Amino acid sequence: MKILVTNDDGFQARGIHHLAKWLSPFGKVIVVAPDGPRSAQSMAITVNVPLRLSPIPAPDSNSDSNIEWYSVNGTPVDCVKLAMNTIFRDEKPDMVVAGINHGSNSAVNVIYSGTMGAVMEGCICNIPSIGFSLTSHDPMADFAPCKPFVEILAAGVLKHGLPENVCLNVNIPDIDGVPEGMRVVRACRGRWTEEYKEYKDPQGKNFYMLTGSFINEEPEAEDTDEWCLSHRLVSVVPTTPERTAPRGEWPKWLDEMSFVI
Amino acid sequence: MKILVTNDDGFQARGIHHLAKWLSPFGKVIVVAPDGPRSAQSMAITVNVPLRLSPIPAPDSNSDSNIEWYSVNGTPVDCVKLAMNTIFRDEKPDMVVAGINHGSNSAVNVIYSGTMGAVMEGCICNIPSIGFSLTSHDPMADFAPCKPFVEILAAGVLKHGLPENVCLNVNIPDIDGVPEGMRVVRACRGRWTEEYKEYKDPQGKNFYMLTGSFINEEPEAEDTDEWCLSHRLVSVVPTTPERTAPRGEWPKWLDEMSFVI
Repeated sequence: MKILVTNDDGFQARGIHHLAKWLSPFGKVIVVAPDGPRSAQSMAITVNVPLRLSPIPAPDSNSDSNIEWYSVNGTPVDCVKLAMNTIFRDEKPDMVVAGINHGSNSAVNVIYSGTMGAVMEGCICNIPSIGFSLTSHDPMADFAPCKPFVEILAAGVLKHGLPENVCLNVNIPDIDGVPEGMRVVRACRGRWTEEYKEYKDPQGKNFYMLTGSFINEEPEAEDTDEWCLSHRLVSVVPTTPERTAPRGEWPKWLDEMSFVI
Repeated sequence: MKILVTNDDGFQARGIHHLAKWLSPFGKVIVVAPDGPRSAQSMAITVNVPLRLSPIPAPDSNSDSNIEWYSVNGTPVDCVKLAMNTIFRDEKPDMVVAGINHGSNSAVNVIYSGTMGAVMEGCICNIPSIGFSLTSHDPMADFAPCKPFVEILAAGVLKHGLPENVCLNVNIPDIDGVPEGMRVVRACRGRWTEEYKEYKDPQGKNFYMLTGSFINEEPEAEDTDEWCLSHRLVSVVPTTPERTAPRGEWPKWLDEMSFVI
């Protein structure tokens, strides 16, 4: 088995070191990760800039000879695309795994997530793909409780595969102790409000920094990722890179505008 | 009516000048566009960097007093988010329109497109949103044949609205003469191959530049955007920012792994 591992926090982040180590008993692990933080890069790709794929020495904490490390001066999707066209040109990996992300990728955040961008790119390449996130931005967060969930889901995906156009978005609650279960659910509806803080620079001109609060629009719904995370449960959301809306939702008035001369 | 106009080619691009001018008879047009090219930025957002919203003089070709111009030092999604939180804080726009993109956003390209990223952000804000693209990367391409399609679809969307979680991805073929019709279709299945060209730098080290060929995996299917574009027709794809896979596609084996202590 060959497993491609990436993330959006950069190869130096602690989350990816744990992930690579826990996956190495399943097969050869090839880490191809950004050379620095690339959070919120969604599925952005780099055009017009030369990309480099650089072998890097294994971090001290991770000298397992079953793990190879590379960095890329691009986005998470660049990492997957470049790996597929170089290291994996002749033989595709059996699985793409991204994370463990430092911070939640639940609800609408899946859309902006670089971690999940890489996972969706793996899915587009028809490779079973999973993203893991821990709901803590603390760089020293305790990742240990994630281990059994990484192992059980990696084993399941390697054994059963995933349907075409479906990948997994796994969020793990940062709680005292271990999560009390795992559920397969949908992404919660919600939105961000008050998304910018306004500042004045020394010249008196305004600038804006991203901030904001997440509003859960359906806090009572028990079949969502947000519900799981606030009830000490791991959420697994089957996620798709398909962008065409389901046919039943197409606006009927548009049909009347269709014409062919 | 108030219409937010943006793009991913930057406010200097010819496509957005045409779009703003053609939309101004429908209402007040506020252009909030990147300060330079941001192609392939998908739904990336800028974190940790100060964003500025700068009023700019109307381009000479566009001195219509019904159009205001602003630039942002960020991505297309930043433009929409920042506009919503500043200019449109108290009164949301009636429509978000992005483009006219220089180049196709059909098939899988919708995923990476900054233009369609902005459109999906508008959709997430519950505002009817449309993206327009012309299938030509020529900076001097003839946009005139796009005009009737921009007008008919903008009028339709302002009159009828769009369903929740559905926006429109419109591609216009770059052909001699005018397109011969318009169809509502799905995004074609296909993929990019040989995505990088390999180079050696003066020090003998490899670098890679994005390139590649698009393979249409279903050239016979008549209900796709690619089919329309190769048959002189405009394609309209109802597109969604929803990322949870339809429930019927969820892998059954995952249910057996769910547990609660």
